[in-house]
Amino acid sequence: MQGNLSVNNPLPSWNEGPAKAAIVDLVTRVTRAGGTDFLPPAERIATFDNDGTLWCEQPLQVQLFFLIDEVGRLAESDPTLRERQPYRALLEHDFSTLLGLGKKGVEELFAATHAGMSQEDFDARVSQWFATARHPKFDRLFSQLTYLPQRELLDYLRANGFRTFIISGGGIDFMRTVSEQIYGIYREQVVGSSGKLQFQIQRDLAVVMKQPGLGCFNDREVKPASIALHIGRRPVLAFGNSDGDLAMLRYCKGGTGARLALLLHHDDAAREVAYDRDFKLSALNEALDKADDYGITLVSMKKDWKEVFGP
Amino acid sequence: MQGNLSVNNPLPSWNEGPAKAAIVDLVTRVTRAGGTDFLPPAERIATFDNDGTLWCEQPLQVQLFFLIDEVGRLAESDPTLRERQPYRALLEHDFSTLLGLGKKGVEELFAATHAGMSQEDFDARVSQWFATARHPKFDRLFSQLTYLPQRELLDYLRANGFRTFIISGGGIDFMRTVSEQIYGIYREQVVGSSGKLQFQIQRDLAVVMKQPGLGCFNDREVKPASIALHIGRRPVLAFGNSDGDLAMLRYCKGGTGARLALLLHHDDAAREVAYDRDFKLSALNEALDKADDYGITLVSMKKDWKEVFGP
Repeated sequence: MQGNLSVNNPLPSWNEGPAKAAIVDLVTRVTRAGGTDFLPPAERIATFDNDGTLWCEQPLQVQLFFLIDEVGRLAESDPTLRERQPYRALLEHDFSTLLGLGKKGVEELFAATHAGMSQEDFDARVSQWFATARHPKFDRLFSQLTYLPQRELLDYLRANGFRTFIISGGGIDFMRTVSEQIYGIYREQVVGSSGKLQFQIQRDLAVVMKQPGLGCFNDREVKPASIALHIGRRPVLAFGNSDGDLAMLRYCKGGTGARLALLLHHDDAAREVAYDRDFKLSALNEALDKADDYGITLVSMKKDWKEVFGP
Repeated sequence: MQGNLSVNNPLPSWNEGPAKAAIVDLVTRVTRAGGTDFLPPAERIATFDNDGTLWCEQPLQVQLFFLIDEVGRLAESDPTLRERQPYRALLEHDFSTLLGLGKKGVEELFAATHAGMSQEDFDARVSQWFATARHPKFDRLFSQLTYLPQRELLDYLRANGFRTFIISGGGIDFMRTVSEQIYGIYREQVVGSSGKLQFQIQRDLAVVMKQPGLGCFNDREVKPASIALHIGRRPVLAFGNSDGDLAMLRYCKGGTGARLALLLHHDDAAREVAYDRDFKLSALNEALDKADDYGITLVSMKKDWKEVFGP
C-alpha cells in the first residue's frame, strides 16, 4: 500500500521549515535503533483526520455532495420529495432551513441514502458516484482532491514502519470505498461516524444491513475513544485541521516519549480556500489560540506546501 | 509479525486430511495470479474466534481466571468483599449463585476490575497477571495455552498476504495485552467485547478512561456487525468453535468467490478436553447439526492436529 518514494527527499512537496523538520525529526527518532525514543514497529501509529486534512472540504464536505446527488437521484423516481422537507431544503442547497429542521431532518436524509441496504450495496453505490462526480470549483473528480503533501507523508510514514489510520467525523463506509485507492489506507484502518448495523439472513444468505439511526458520531472527544476502541494504543503522530481534532491531538501528546501533533491551517486563498475561525462545519478557534499551550505544530498550507493537489 | 515458516510444509502440526486440504486449497486459489478466485491482498481477510479457537477455554475462559484473581487482590485491601455478593460467589467459585445474581452481578464484577482506570493502566495490570498466572490443570502460563496448529495457520495466512483478526466475545483490551506477543496479531486487529470509554483531561494530560457499563457484547449475530464496523469487508476465511461463531462463519460463506469457514471440535479428552453440546459457556449444538447445510468444515482436534499446545 505504498506509492513511489524518493529516499533522499521523502517529502518533495513540503517546503523546508519547522513543520517538515518536526516530521523528519520524529520519524528519525522513533526508528533509530538503540536511541532513547526508539519504538518497535507495533507501536508506530499515525492518525489523520480526513475532511480538510487529507482532502478538500470546501465549499462542502465531499460526503455532502454525495448526499445531495443521492437525494436528487431518489427524487427522479419520487418527485414528491422535491416538495417535502428535509429533501427540498437539501436539493435547493438551503442549508439554513435544513439546519433549522434540526437533528431529525439530517437523520432522515441519512436514513434515506445511507441505510436500508447491505454494506456491499452501499459500497457499490458510492463507488459509482466517485467514478464520475466532479468538484464544482476545481473541476476534478472528488477522488483527485486529496493533498499531495499528505499522500507523500502517508507513504513516508509507512516506509518507516508506521501504520496509518483515518480518524474522521465522515462516514466510515463512505470513506472506505476509496481509502485504499487514494491513500493506500486499508478499510480496517478507517474509523469514522457510523450508523447501526444488523446481521440478517436473507434467502439463506448472511448479510450485514446498514440500519437507520446513528451508532457513533466520531467528532471531538469521541475521536480518542474511537482510537482506543479501534486501535488500542495512542498515536505517535496525529494530524488534524479543526477544533474537532483537538482531543485527538492532545491524546497523542499525552503519551510518553516522542510525539508529534500537527494542525493544518487553510491560509491559501490562491491555491485552495482561506478559512479558520469562520467556517462553521469545521472551525479552527481554540486550536489557533492554544496550539502553543498544547504543544501542537501548525502547518501553513501557504508556506509549508510546495504543491496542494498535485498534477 | 510472523514466526518461522517452513515453505515446503507450512502447517507441520496439522495431519493430512480434509481440513488441512481445504485450507491449502483456499490459500492456493486466492493467491494464484490470473486464477478465477484470485484476490488482491487488500481483500485477504481472515477472522478467528479466540476462546476455544486460538487458546484453551477449559475449565474456564482465561479472562475469568483473571477476574477471580483480581477480585482476590481487591479483597486483600477490602476484606468485606469476601462477605458481599457478587464477590463472595466468585471467590468461592460458586458459579450457580453468581449466575443467579443475573446480569447486574456480572456487571459489578467487571466494573470493579475492568473500569475506573485508563486503557494503559488496565493494560499494565493484565500484563502483570499474564507474567505469572498459571493454568490449574496444564500447569503452564496462560500465554502458553495457545494451540500450535493455529499459530502455524496464522503464520501461513500472513505469509500469503492475509491480514489476521480476532473476533471474540472476550474483552478487547484484555486480549490486546498479549495478542502481539502470542499470535503476532496487532492490537488494532483484535475485536472483542468492550466497555464504555471516555476521554478526559486529567492534570492537563489527555487520557481515555475505561468506564463501567457494557459498550458491546461481541457474540453471535453481533460478530458480523463488528466485522463490518471494524474491518469493513467480509472475511475470506473464518474460524470458530461454538454456536456463538455461527453468524460469523455464515457471514464469511455469504460472500462471492472462494470462502472457507472452519469449526474446531474439541473431541480430544486425552490431550485437551472433550466437550461440545454440554458446555454452557460455549456450546456447540446448532453448528454440529447444521455444519453441512451451512458449508462449514469441521476440524477435529483429535484427528486433524498432530500437536495441541506444542512444546
